[in-house]
Amino acid sequence: MKNYLVTTDFSTEYLNGLIESALKIKSGEVRNKPLDGKSIALVFFNPSLRTRASMQVGIYELGGNAVILEPGGTSWTLEHRDGVVMDGNKTEHLAEFVRVLERYVSAIGVRTFAELKDWETERTDPILNAFAKYATVPIINLESAMHHPCQSMADMMTIREKLGAGRKKVLMTWAWHPKPLPMAVPDSFALAAAQFGHDLRIVHPKGYELDDALIAEIEKQSAANGGSVEFTNDVHSAFDDVEVVYAKSWGGKQFYGDTDKDIEFRTGLRNDWIVDEQKMARTNNASFMHCLPVRRNVIVTDGVIDSANSVVIDEAENRLHIQKAIMSELIK
Amino acid sequence: MKNYLVTTDFSTEYLNGLIESALKIKSGEVRNKPLDGKSIALVFFNPSLRTRASMQVGIYELGGNAVILEPGGTSWTLEHRDGVVMDGNKTEHLAEFVRVLERYVSAIGVRTFAELKDWETERTDPILNAFAKYATVPIINLESAMHHPCQSMADMMTIREKLGAGRKKVLMTWAWHPKPLPMAVPDSFALAAAQFGHDLRIVHPKGYELDDALIAEIEKQSAANGGSVEFTNDVHSAFDDVEVVYAKSWGGKQFYGDTDKDIEFRTGLRNDWIVDEQKMARTNNASFMHCLPVRRNVIVTDGVIDSANSVVIDEAENRLHIQKAIMSELIK
Amino acid sequence: MKNYLVTTDFSTEYLNGLIESALKIKSGEVRNKPLDGKSIALVFFNPSLRTRASMQVGIYELGGNAVILEPGGTSWTLEHRDGVVMDGNKTEHLAEFVRVLERYVSAIGVRTFAELKDWETERTDPILNAFAKYATVPIINLESAMHHPCQSMADMMTIREKLGAGRKKVLMTWAWHPKPLPMAVPDSFALAAAQFGHDLRIVHPKGYELDDALIAEIEKQSAANGGSVEFTNDVHSAFDDVEVVYAKSWGGKQFYGDTDKDIEFRTGLRNDWIVDEQKMARTNNASFMHCLPVRRNVIVTDGVIDSANSVVIDEAENRLHIQKAIMSELIK
Repeated sequence: MKNYLVTTDFSTEYLNGLIESALKIKSGEVRNKPLDGKSIALVFFNPSLRTRASMQVGIYELGGNAVILEPGGTSWTLEHRDGVVMDGNKTEHLAEFVRVLERYVSAIGVRTFAELKDWETERTDPILNAFAKYATVPIINLESAMHHPCQSMADMMTIREKLGAGRKKVLMTWAWHPKPLPMAVPDSFALAAAQFGHDLRIVHPKGYELDDALIAEIEKQSAANGGSVEFTNDVHSAFDDVEVVYAKSWGGKQFYGDTDKDIEFRTGLRNDWIVDEQKMARTNNASFMHCLPVRRNVIVTDGVIDSANSVVIDEAENRLHIQKAIMSELIK
Repeated sequence: MKNYLVTTDFSTEYLNGLIESALKIKSGEVRNKPLDGKSIALVFFNPSLRTRASMQVGIYELGGNAVILEPGGTSWTLEHRDGVVMDGNKTEHLAEFVRVLERYVSAIGVRTFAELKDWETERTDPILNAFAKYATVPIINLESAMHHPCQSMADMMTIREKLGAGRKKVLMTWAWHPKPLPMAVPDSFALAAAQFGHDLRIVHPKGYELDDALIAEIEKQSAANGGSVEFTNDVHSAFDDVEVVYAKSWGGKQFYGDTDKDIEFRTGLRNDWIVDEQKMARTNNASFMHCLPVRRNVIVTDGVIDSANSVVIDEAENRLHIQKAIMSELIK
Repeated sequence: MKNYLVTTDFSTEYLNGLIESALKIKSGEVRNKPLDGKSIALVFFNPSLRTRASMQVGIYELGGNAVILEPGGTSWTLEHRDGVVMDGNKTEHLAEFVRVLERYVSAIGVRTFAELKDWETERTDPILNAFAKYATVPIINLESAMHHPCQSMADMMTIREKLGAGRKKVLMTWAWHPKPLPMAVPDSFALAAAQFGHDLRIVHPKGYELDDALIAEIEKQSAANGGSVEFTNDVHSAFDDVEVVYAKSWGGKQFYGDTDKDIEFRTGLRNDWIVDEQKMARTNNASFMHCLPVRRNVIVTDGVIDSANSVVIDEAENRLHIQKAIMSELIK
């Protein structure tokens, strides 16, 4: 594969190899500079801390030069649909944006969140896929409408570091948030957990089901890799005996286009769905994970995120190492 | 010349030398790092893709360090007029901005679009010239109110690459756009085409005449360099037999300060002034050029910009190479 | 000290050593690259020219890589208070922001202006101190609510360069500005002048007194370092015989939270408090200093800032050199 768009484009063996490389980079055993003399574009449609900082640092440490563009801010607004008569509010077409940019750089990283407006459109990841369609250089997904494969690989690396290689009991739990958020992180975490053969339990309130096709893919990957998948709506018993608690809030797909309806629907879910000490006590001494940013005392209590079981900072650090491994592999 | 503000500050011989250098840089024959250890400031009053990315990459490839500032955004708002009592909305004077910045960097690139407000003021390029006035380090024009000489030199380089050296039949055509745009690109393209001795035809609707003094300079340069200049308002016959079609929309100088009037005035021009397959068929197999960003199916049809005759991506790539040549020459 | 937050965390001897180092860096005698392979985060809550440019250039010249983040812009909005239930408009807690960032970088520079809202809160520099609390890597104060120690050390270096080492007669004068500004610069200048044993005179209108605890610290440092401190409200006689005039506007601490009241209170002060040729004539051929940005003909007349006695550009240049000295010392 030329691009790094979703983990399911790669075999578990390949993904394991990326983690091996990332561990060697982290330990200092590998210090190569494969990007020496090369520039990498980072295109941010949305804000970012970890991605922005870790990509810049990673590119520098690999010997390269990061060039950051913010469409609609420092750079032009972008149209991605084919055949459009561009007499509206978009100034440049992705066809030109990508084809020009790749004359200057060796790869393009893209962050483009879901707008939570039109589920049938956004579930196809149209902007990310337009980048991939027009580009001949590698496109690296830095979180798209539907996937965040750099995050999920940092997650898999962190589980391996903390708990050792092999099959673990992993809970992904929905959490209440004041407004609906995209599904990229839960989608990618669930897929990667399935690809790595973990026993994955997903708990969310009724109404917050993942995409049907995605669920089918999770189940397929899980079966193929010797793991299991279980869906439940019981937030308390879901924590029983798990070794990893992965918290994340997301919006309901049926509410795309109507934020207020989602906010109203989730009224009353707040207190039950926060990750707190009581829930963590039901686990098998589980590690607490979250992709960050996280709203303290909303998604998770201070007590849990500040506990010894919280691995969120290591998880964020691993973004750097896994992304260096991915770039080293893809950018020639 | 210390600065790179307009191509007419330089002889055709000098400009040809820049293209020679850029071609050697592009081929890889020249790989010098004249900016090693040096920082270059890039001051963006306006958004940018090509300029922002190609300058950052070019500076890196020449061994230097790009420092980006956005007055009014990441940096302070700037006053450029002398003697002003600064009790309004501008926080810093260019006199200090430039004199401080040049203590840190070896050259300053500036992007500052026309505001389309006051023709008599903007035609003098006041902000660009204030930078030049206060600076002792080279100022590089990355598109000012009236000129875009990095673009026009990339254009001349592209014509030479595609059609060979020597005199060509070149059409610059106005195109309809939903709102008035600055004249920097058409001004600089026409001047450079004249300096390179091309046979230049300029077609635009009545009401979109270029600046009188600029026209005089185009005619002078053309005569001095063995070319010709022709102005017409007939958008169809203008395409006959030309070897290059250079499309660009711009606003009428009499409408500066009244955008709505320009928009009303151009009503009805849209269909006639788009560059489409029919018009291109009248040419001598012409290359299609545009500085980008371009609104597809408004300025030019998908059919033309996606055709084999379209050289817009190569043209944008050449921005990188010519700017590296310019910086190598000016920054010591 | 791990951090560079306020100059009073350091002895005068240490601070003098920083100036010695900065002078050697400026002369080219020292050209070390102690940041080779290291990344430094620069976190800007507010706009900046000198800090942004000089830090980027300084880091590059020391061999390192600057990573810029703008919370609320390119990066997430940040909460700094402990124990908060984050269901408001802040997306990420500083506890995570800092702890993640320091996994990627070797030091963090922070610019975070006073909001001029709540004096009792802001006088404690809560955001800067939260960075320091959560970080294990050095935190460098690039101007906080109450201090600007990079500026004040560049100021001390400039006085030494222009007037030689030793005790000087230094005036810090309030000036009228259309709106209230933070006190960071006057606080830090006064502290540093006291630490360096200068004879410091501070003149401001009644109602613009500095913080009581800060005044006590200034007096303590002055006594300990063989200097003197004098406060006055007579803007004319204050200029008599001084060797340095340091102009700066600031807001009254009693007006925090009520900008309009401060603006009303300062009505009528404008003409008396501008630094002009008449006032400068009363000095002992004093150097004119200002941290910049400065509003010309509001804070200072064109005649004074453009005179041979104005050292504002050298002062701004010294920001680069002293910051390189500070980073070389702190970042291992």
